[in-house]
Amino acid sequence: MIQRRTETALERYLPVPVTAPVRLHAAMRYSVLGGGKRMRPLLCHAAGEAVDADPQQVDSAACAVELIHAYSLVHDDLPCMDNDVLRRGRPTCHVEYDEATALLVGDALQTLAFQLLAEHPAAPAPGRQLTMLTLLAQAAGSRGMAGGQAIDLAAVGMALSIEELEFMHIHKTGALIRAAVLLGAHTGAADEATLQGLGHFANRAGLLFQVVDDILDAEGSTVTLGKTAGKDAAQDKPTYVSMIGLERAKEMAARLREEAHAALASIQVDTGRLAALTDYITERNF
Amino acid sequence: MIQRRTETALERYLPVPVTAPVRLHAAMRYSVLGGGKRMRPLLCHAAGEAVDADPQQVDSAACAVELIHAYSLVHDDLPCMDNDVLRRGRPTCHVEYDEATALLVGDALQTLAFQLLAEHPAAPAPGRQLTMLTLLAQAAGSRGMAGGQAIDLAAVGMALSIEELEFMHIHKTGALIRAAVLLGAHTGAADEATLQGLGHFANRAGLLFQVVDDILDAEGSTVTLGKTAGKDAAQDKPTYVSMIGLERAKEMAARLREEAHAALASIQVDTGRLAALTDYITERNF
Repeated sequence: MIQRRTETALERYLPVPVTAPVRLHAAMRYSVLGGGKRMRPLLCHAAGEAVDADPQQVDSAACAVELIHAYSLVHDDLPCMDNDVLRRGRPTCHVEYDEATALLVGDALQTLAFQLLAEHPAAPAPGRQLTMLTLLAQAAGSRGMAGGQAIDLAAVGMALSIEELEFMHIHKTGALIRAAVLLGAHTGAADEATLQGLGHFANRAGLLFQVVDDILDAEGSTVTLGKTAGKDAAQDKPTYVSMIGLERAKEMAARLREEAHAALASIQVDTGRLAALTDYITERNF
Repeated sequence: MIQRRTETALERYLPVPVTAPVRLHAAMRYSVLGGGKRMRPLLCHAAGEAVDADPQQVDSAACAVELIHAYSLVHDDLPCMDNDVLRRGRPTCHVEYDEATALLVGDALQTLAFQLLAEHPAAPAPGRQLTMLTLLAQAAGSRGMAGGQAIDLAAVGMALSIEELEFMHIHKTGALIRAAVLLGAHTGAADEATLQGLGHFANRAGLLFQVVDDILDAEGSTVTLGKTAGKDAAQDKPTYVSMIGLERAKEMAARLREEAHAALASIQVDTGRLAALTDYITERNF
């Protein structure tokens, strides 16, 4: 239901493909719509539900986070980065269109994310909304997701310590997962203790998501994943599986899941949907 | 003085190059600091002065616009776009570092622009600051600067009408020049009539800036420009000079300058510095 809701909201927020420049807008829609787990919007809405937010208000925050994620995938797939040809079961943006267009698509999707979150009412007060914009930018920028990508690039073929691997993942994936939860929490009237508890949960959930991703990349098939399986190993990138082995990676996922549940249990609001999502993140096979 | 002030502010806002990821942060500083006309910060501060804004409050808006401009140059220089090797008299970012780093530098500079403008007090009220964020995003996005780049790409080797050329320039350059003025105007307490007058001025100034750029690209040398001269012609890109000739382009610049001054004259506040900048834009030789 939230996935359907997010799809509709994204369709509404993305420029229609008859507005000039038509090709750029078509490519933006191609890259965002019709696929994806929408994990970040799900987390954002679940956190919003925990703080009794109006789902309408949560939409722009949820879509803003998803657009940041979508932009990062488009750029990540480019030849100078991962050089990947398959994403969500379809040709990547630069394969379907061209490299220059894919570059601009990523750029414009990032801009649109901030535009959405600035333009539409998304919090009980404008000052709170500025905090949300700051949180999203911190999570996306050079000390967050983009920084994680840079560390990832530098790590190819390197022997990382498990601490360095965790540092990379906390930036590359964790920061935006965390932002999804925190932005959702800010759409309602969460007190400081609730925000802190949700922040603690978000840290565990972010790392859990990445460990499960590593396990799926090692175990899954290209068909179920909708993206190229086994590419971390093929590109000689360090993963939890390559560093500690499949069994210990699974144990780690189980532990993180417990810690995430424990963090939720300490919060004084109804976090049922976040708990369910934690299980979904762990048990997914795509 | 404003240029020096902007340089100091940018230095302060950019992550220090000892924060991880070190290479990314060094490349971000390389791409932003130590060069550039800082035309957009100059316009932003001049508009701020017209509405009696505290220059301290204008800094973040001025730097945010400049960071959007800087990111666009880094991406524009990439091999899949203009494939340029020289910028501000130095090797472009992807030449000095590498392509993947330059991609991430542009991405992270855009994020930082929005972070600055959300994080620091920049307007009399938070609601006004959200409007500024919206204006910046509109100017930068697919219906602004990034859209202009897409139109530019599609225009290589094409026969554009003069209207289509103007449409392209209004997006590619004009939108951000306009945003620089409007954001400056929002940092103070401008009334609706003043904002409208400044908007009208900004439209003329943006087009003027581009026409002069075309003239300089045709007449200037690589040494004075600090970037590759004559590259529009070499890349078979339509410009005002290629379309209407050098003399008529110069007449057009003179007319736009007069229209910009006329727009300023109709505003009930002191726009002396904006008038001086209009002349500077027209008479510059770099």
